[in-house]
Amino acid sequence: MSDHKAAAAAKNLSGKVAAVRAEVCALHAELTRYGLVVWTAGNVSARVQGEELMVIKPSGLAYAELTPESMVVTDLFGTPAAGDWGNPTFAPSSDTAAHAYVYRHMPEVGGVVHTHSTYATAWAARGEAIPCVLTMMGDEFGGDIPVGPFALIGDDSIGQGIVETLRDSKSPAVLMKNHGPFTIGRDARAAVKAAVMCEEVAKTVHVSRQLGEPLPIDPALIASLHDRYQNVYGQ
Amino acid sequence: MSDHKAAAAAKNLSGKVAAVRAEVCALHAELTRYGLVVWTAGNVSARVQGEELMVIKPSGLAYAELTPESMVVTDLFGTPAAGDWGNPTFAPSSDTAAHAYVYRHMPEVGGVVHTHSTYATAWAARGEAIPCVLTMMGDEFGGDIPVGPFALIGDDSIGQGIVETLRDSKSPAVLMKNHGPFTIGRDARAAVKAAVMCEEVAKTVHVSRQLGEPLPIDPALIASLHDRYQNVYGQ
Amino acid sequence: MSDHKAAAAAKNLSGKVAAVRAEVCALHAELTRYGLVVWTAGNVSARVQGEELMVIKPSGLAYAELTPESMVVTDLFGTPAAGDWGNPTFAPSSDTAAHAYVYRHMPEVGGVVHTHSTYATAWAARGEAIPCVLTMMGDEFGGDIPVGPFALIGDDSIGQGIVETLRDSKSPAVLMKNHGPFTIGRDARAAVKAAVMCEEVAKTVHVSRQLGEPLPIDPALIASLHDRYQNVYGQ
Amino acid sequence: MSDHKAAAAAKNLSGKVAAVRAEVCALHAELTRYGLVVWTAGNVSARVQGEELMVIKPSGLAYAELTPESMVVTDLFGTPAAGDWGNPTFAPSSDTAAHAYVYRHMPEVGGVVHTHSTYATAWAARGEAIPCVLTMMGDEFGGDIPVGPFALIGDDSIGQGIVETLRDSKSPAVLMKNHGPFTIGRDARAAVKAAVMCEEVAKTVHVSRQLGEPLPIDPALIASLHDRYQNVYGQ
Repeated sequence: MSDHKAAAAAKNLSGKVAAVRAEVCALHAELTRYGLVVWTAGNVSARVQGEELMVIKPSGLAYAELTPESMVVTDLFGTPAAGDWGNPTFAPSSDTAAHAYVYRHMPEVGGVVHTHSTYATAWAARGEAIPCVLTMMGDEFGGDIPVGPFALIGDDSIGQGIVETLRDSKSPAVLMKNHGPFTIGRDARAAVKAAVMCEEVAKTVHVSRQLGEPLPIDPALIASLHDRYQNVYGQ
Repeated sequence: MSDHKAAAAAKNLSGKVAAVRAEVCALHAELTRYGLVVWTAGNVSARVQGEELMVIKPSGLAYAELTPESMVVTDLFGTPAAGDWGNPTFAPSSDTAAHAYVYRHMPEVGGVVHTHSTYATAWAARGEAIPCVLTMMGDEFGGDIPVGPFALIGDDSIGQGIVETLRDSKSPAVLMKNHGPFTIGRDARAAVKAAVMCEEVAKTVHVSRQLGEPLPIDPALIASLHDRYQNVYGQ
Repeated sequence: MSDHKAAAAAKNLSGKVAAVRAEVCALHAELTRYGLVVWTAGNVSARVQGEELMVIKPSGLAYAELTPESMVVTDLFGTPAAGDWGNPTFAPSSDTAAHAYVYRHMPEVGGVVHTHSTYATAWAARGEAIPCVLTMMGDEFGGDIPVGPFALIGDDSIGQGIVETLRDSKSPAVLMKNHGPFTIGRDARAAVKAAVMCEEVAKTVHVSRQLGEPLPIDPALIASLHDRYQNVYGQ
Repeated sequence: MSDHKAAAAAKNLSGKVAAVRAEVCALHAELTRYGLVVWTAGNVSARVQGEELMVIKPSGLAYAELTPESMVVTDLFGTPAAGDWGNPTFAPSSDTAAHAYVYRHMPEVGGVVHTHSTYATAWAARGEAIPCVLTMMGDEFGGDIPVGPFALIGDDSIGQGIVETLRDSKSPAVLMKNHGPFTIGRDARAAVKAAVMCEEVAKTVHVSRQLGEPLPIDPALIASLHDRYQNVYGQ
């Protein structure tokens, strides 16, 4: 590759990374808007499409302090990337290994979100899947929201638990036991939407079950709702 | 009709539609203010009085992005209207068929609202009517808030279920089974108020029943509360 | 009285009323800040000290639209006052008769608040007093928050129920059966504080009782907490 | 000490106190942001490091009115400090004695927070510790959140109860019986974080237990989570 071509490629990559940083930073505001996180306990990441890179929240920073520049670029093993744009002041989220594992093993995933949102985490603490008793659960999740294994932070256990649970599920959300929800999407915005909807249905089904048993929905109708929503809804 | 008269009529219609668009857009802010909706999951519509037209939220747009111009004008079968003012960039809400069915079959209705507000939807998931145990339920709903049938999106089933349930009820709200509330009003603002009050009483009665049985109110007193409120209250 | 004296007295009264209007208007913002009200369902009033007058929210206006000028001045029977400053565009709150009855029968009361705040109303719907199991209930209420009778709007029944319940109670709050809380104070700000604290303890004791029985507090210690708080606390 | 040295020391102390006042004032905004307090019912204090002084909220002031200047400087027995910077217009919080006791007996503590946050106070009203069934409880609290004794305001009883409960616990939070949580930290920000996380886990575990029993976590794994979080997390 000539020097010109290399410079152009670097410039192109730099612009691509900057755009992802801006998007990941902005999407954290949706987590606070919908009350899914307190203090610093939740994070959004996005794959840099076409590169072996991802962008994720820095560790321990408050949401109000986040800027596109403070977002951290890592490779798909969670190692901060080298180079000008990849050499941030901040260490990546302590959940980076789990996000990275998902990107390595689920190529169709472009965004990952982790929160400890109250109602979803309450189901996770009991290790209980959220039953699909709402048409909007059929639309968005295509069935129950499944439970993943108990896994400690520090190695690939959490990532493996997420991938093994979601690989054969229609649901973009998994409730990691005693921990909280992880959600995935074709891009970071879709993963954030799944996190918002996961908490919403976790709360609604919880409230409904407090005073009796919600009515089940026929699985064939759930499949029909999901198919229509995924293929027809929106602009 | 002379050309002059036709031009004046078109101008008049254009102004009327613009006013309804502005109102429908603004009323969506009440849905977010009272926490009745997350992401894009709820919508307001209004009849264009004196015309075979309605105005409704575009599909899949976030509430913060809504503008009067993005509201969609359709006929009373949900087909986007032709002409300059009726030819928007956006497709109408996926719930348009249900709103349109209501306008076709209930001429006294000028506004329709649909949400998945948490507590009302929790009652809907159990298929259980909200009992009238609060004076403010007597005022606003005139009795229990009834349950409508389970119905899939895609044809007139939802609209039929709404109309059949509300036609002979004093209540402006119906809880569609496993789905969520629809509310109606003489105008869009009244339908939004009914949606806000529906969630408020759904929550209050839920909370009350968590620790025992609420005291019933004599139906004659409920009728008296409702009559007074509908005919005397306000400016 | 000379013309000069009469003019000075009128000017003085006009200034006094304007100050109360500004205060009553501003205090409604505390009701929305603490989520005690939705739509138009709650109101604050204040006595005009030294006059047979009170100031109260207009009927049916949204909180965001309230201005000092829109507050309504009435006599202590709820009849809108005559004269320039007493002749507003708006009708007073539909709860005015209840507020007025309290001012007529409890001369020490300078402010009254009515809401349908969720948790307090949930206790009211069961007709159940809130037991004093929190030190902050001892401080503010001096014991249980009592229940008042079921009473219809339209005559003095609600006002009588409030006065009969609170006259011999340390509590500044009463839960009117199937209806909601009314609170009183030496001024309107104190009555608003009581409304805020009433909902807070209604929620906390509700939540506590959901998973077991709260520990009782010795009545002598409650009396001691109340005495200290009422006489020592604050600046 | 020469006059010059004394003047320099006084100037230095004055600057140090001003910085603590600004921080303590600002941290109260986190209490309202996370809904931990209503009206004036909660307070933050900080030790002035290297001095026998602390800074605390004034009694009875609303959160929106707080300024760095209104924060009160006291000695470690709660007596307002003498001198220009220590002679405020306002009396210190009625909880000052409890904060002061903690600073006298726990030299490692640099900040104390007291709230009546709803869910933590609900556990406190039952006198029940919050079981450690969430990984984020392991991270932040290293085990259950313990209960402290019932104690009346007015002497050192509350302070003693806090210190006796927390001295041998990994938890920075204690639920004082029938009262509410107190939290400590190496600085005021850490104590505020503990207050925020205490309410969050109090709510999540409450919600989880409403529909069954949360899964326990092996104490060895809790210890491992706590150790990692306290020593590795953040920037």
